[in-house]
Amino acid sequence: MGSTLLCNATVLTVDSGNAVYSGGWVSFVDGRITGVGAAETCPRGADFDQVHDLAGHIVMPGLVNAHTHSAMILFRGRSEGQSLLTMEGWYNSIREPELSLVSSDIGPAVALSCAEMALSGTTTFCDQYFFAEEIAAAVKDAGLRAVIAYGIVQLGDKERGEEELAKATDFLRQQRSADGRVIPWFGPHAPYVDNTEDLLLAEVAVANEFGVGLHLHMACGPEDNEETERRYGTTAAVALEKLGFFNGRIHAAHCLDLSPEDIAVFARAPHASISHNATAGLRSGREGICPVVDLKAAGVTVALGTDNVAANNGYDMINEMRVAGLVASHRERTAQPISSAELVRMATIEGAKALGLASEIGSLEVGKAADIIAIDISGAGYSETPDIETLLVYSGSGRDVRHVFVAGEQLVQDRQLLRRPLSEIRAEYSNTYRDFWDRVAAARKVA
Amino acid sequence: MGSTLLCNATVLTVDSGNAVYSGGWVSFVDGRITGVGAAETCPRGADFDQVHDLAGHIVMPGLVNAHTHSAMILFRGRSEGQSLLTMEGWYNSIREPELSLVSSDIGPAVALSCAEMALSGTTTFCDQYFFAEEIAAAVKDAGLRAVIAYGIVQLGDKERGEEELAKATDFLRQQRSADGRVIPWFGPHAPYVDNTEDLLLAEVAVANEFGVGLHLHMACGPEDNEETERRYGTTAAVALEKLGFFNGRIHAAHCLDLSPEDIAVFARAPHASISHNATAGLRSGREGICPVVDLKAAGVTVALGTDNVAANNGYDMINEMRVAGLVASHRERTAQPISSAELVRMATIEGAKALGLASEIGSLEVGKAADIIAIDISGAGYSETPDIETLLVYSGSGRDVRHVFVAGEQLVQDRQLLRRPLSEIRAEYSNTYRDFWDRVAAARKVA
Repeated sequence: MGSTLLCNATVLTVDSGNAVYSGGWVSFVDGRITGVGAAETCPRGADFDQVHDLAGHIVMPGLVNAHTHSAMILFRGRSEGQSLLTMEGWYNSIREPELSLVSSDIGPAVALSCAEMALSGTTTFCDQYFFAEEIAAAVKDAGLRAVIAYGIVQLGDKERGEEELAKATDFLRQQRSADGRVIPWFGPHAPYVDNTEDLLLAEVAVANEFGVGLHLHMACGPEDNEETERRYGTTAAVALEKLGFFNGRIHAAHCLDLSPEDIAVFARAPHASISHNATAGLRSGREGICPVVDLKAAGVTVALGTDNVAANNGYDMINEMRVAGLVASHRERTAQPISSAELVRMATIEGAKALGLASEIGSLEVGKAADIIAIDISGAGYSETPDIETLLVYSGSGRDVRHVFVAGEQLVQDRQLLRRPLSEIRAEYSNTYRDFWDRVAAARKVA
Repeated sequence: MGSTLLCNATVLTVDSGNAVYSGGWVSFVDGRITGVGAAETCPRGADFDQVHDLAGHIVMPGLVNAHTHSAMILFRGRSEGQSLLTMEGWYNSIREPELSLVSSDIGPAVALSCAEMALSGTTTFCDQYFFAEEIAAAVKDAGLRAVIAYGIVQLGDKERGEEELAKATDFLRQQRSADGRVIPWFGPHAPYVDNTEDLLLAEVAVANEFGVGLHLHMACGPEDNEETERRYGTTAAVALEKLGFFNGRIHAAHCLDLSPEDIAVFARAPHASISHNATAGLRSGREGICPVVDLKAAGVTVALGTDNVAANNGYDMINEMRVAGLVASHRERTAQPISSAELVRMATIEGAKALGLASEIGSLEVGKAADIIAIDISGAGYSETPDIETLLVYSGSGRDVRHVFVAGEQLVQDRQLLRRPLSEIRAEYSNTYRDFWDRVAAARKVA
């Protein structure tokens, strides 16, 4: 891969001191960051194989989308008027057509999701779904970094549960990619849906055996606490703590309804984190809003995610930072209780922490993987300000991402995908989309 | 100007039936729409001076930003942690530096605001500020359509009030542009700030004399109802109705705190409307949220606005539609209580109604002014869906606007301004910005 220098940019390092360098630079060699600094320390361009002059750009760590279901792009725009965080809304707009999904649908759908993520600056995402092997294959083709949690929904079927557990174990054994970009995890959908206590315990045991994290939904819909209250006499967080979920790494999505006791569960766990999915939460019409300020005060890692793009309906993590900022202001009844700099951390290093990747990605520091993006801020929508993070969060757009590197490999150059053109990905997706919805329509006719 | 045909687009007419034409067309001659229709009725390109093949685009009416203060782009990113809908937050981050503004700052600032609005698809906006003449001049240079409300803040000074009223009257007399794009209004800041009852009554009289609308802030901060309660023993809406404000055209910004009685005041007025500024409202950390669903149920015209870009911090009206949709879902505790199609109406025809321009703009119908935008939906972020309005509102971005026409004149072509390049506007703005903030710093040293 050789050596690369990015220079003359406004560099957001997102390091522990949130250092920002105007006219700054980043260098990387063979996929690893070798230097970051201010203008006056910039090395000579002649010493690098490639030099990008990025005046008028922000250079920062690649964004981390801490919760999505990338295959669900097939459902985008198909849930208007439905709350995807209620069982009824989810069933009506997602689950029923989902039963017509076949494994060959997954690759083209995930490919488009990866393309949209890469083009808007996301370099790492956390996925949870069925068809985990097909997702892994598509992510490897795209070149992104992803935690892929093998999703299990038992549906009250003991045998199915055991079968799925065996498959998930195989997935954990086989899917870690040689280059480390694909990381298999376990993804029990949620304790309140249908996984039995036996299965949940078995999942924790397997996750511990392989040293992988558990990614699940928690406290996201009106049914959640009702169901765990009925089954365990307590909230999901407290019940799962008793089942051992909080002993290892646990990453919970949504968490719109958390009690102070629930927050304490997260705070005392060694590696517990939350993906706050602000847009999806608001759009679902719930009263609850993830208590980010309280969680952060308690020391809990809170990352940002888009959720699936039927709920959202896009992958733009800059938009997600902005909505998280807006909804926190409303929830806390005070202006910007979460600073823009903190929102940027939530979309980068906090996401990396949530996925157990903080030593590898999430900030621009020497030795870390070169997951780096350059955002063009020379166009309309940006203007002079002393506060670069606020400019990015509240005036920015994922549409302005110009270059994207993952582990030093350039995936996006001048807003274009390098591995495979978007037009080709879209054409394949369009065929898949039509086939899929034709199948759904046919299934509905039979039913 | 000759004749122009836009064809092969997905045309959102926003007419009374919300007709959408796939592969549709719009034609206009000398600034007026002459035809709109479905693919099969498309006229021959050879009969037009200009033809734009817009496959892969949405063609729709230009967006209407129903509330902003365009000169305040100078304050963008300068109010982090401050609620601009409280007196204290506004004073600390805006009013104090605002006292250093001079008239020569206004043109370059408004020019950049107009550029950002045009490039993101806004063709008409409603402005309210001091320096109304300078704003009008900059808008004329930019070619946008704007209602410019002459802002009066009396600051307890009777003489100043009378002086301002005389100047405002001159403004109403002189500023209506020959081409009808600049429309002068009256803009008393808000009854709760400082305008006396005498001045408010005089403003209504002058507005009636000239047949122009009144644009003001209402029920937007914690001080509002407290102050009107103290002065009038009732809410702002009820008090202003008694003062005659609701007899003519009245357009109120924000309205986060409205009682059922207030909604009834708006509903029974002949021409009353509200600009819901969803992003600015959320960002201010207020509990109140404009009760859009109740207002619409009562038959009140509700438009969308960005507010100033210190509060917002951008002019992207597609983003504003999305945030309005999100916050309505949260407020009403139900998924998408305002449909995407309705959000599109709020950003177009409802804005036109609010400004008294519904016979002229806001929908693509024969005879109306050709205020038309084309949005490129062939790129990342968009994919197949049967619901084009949801695609636009929840997956779209103002960054994807490709062409913009106002009264048939093309202001934006292939994402570039035609009258004057953005680079030139930005360079002039940058000088102004530096001068202005140097002046603010000098004033602070003296103080």
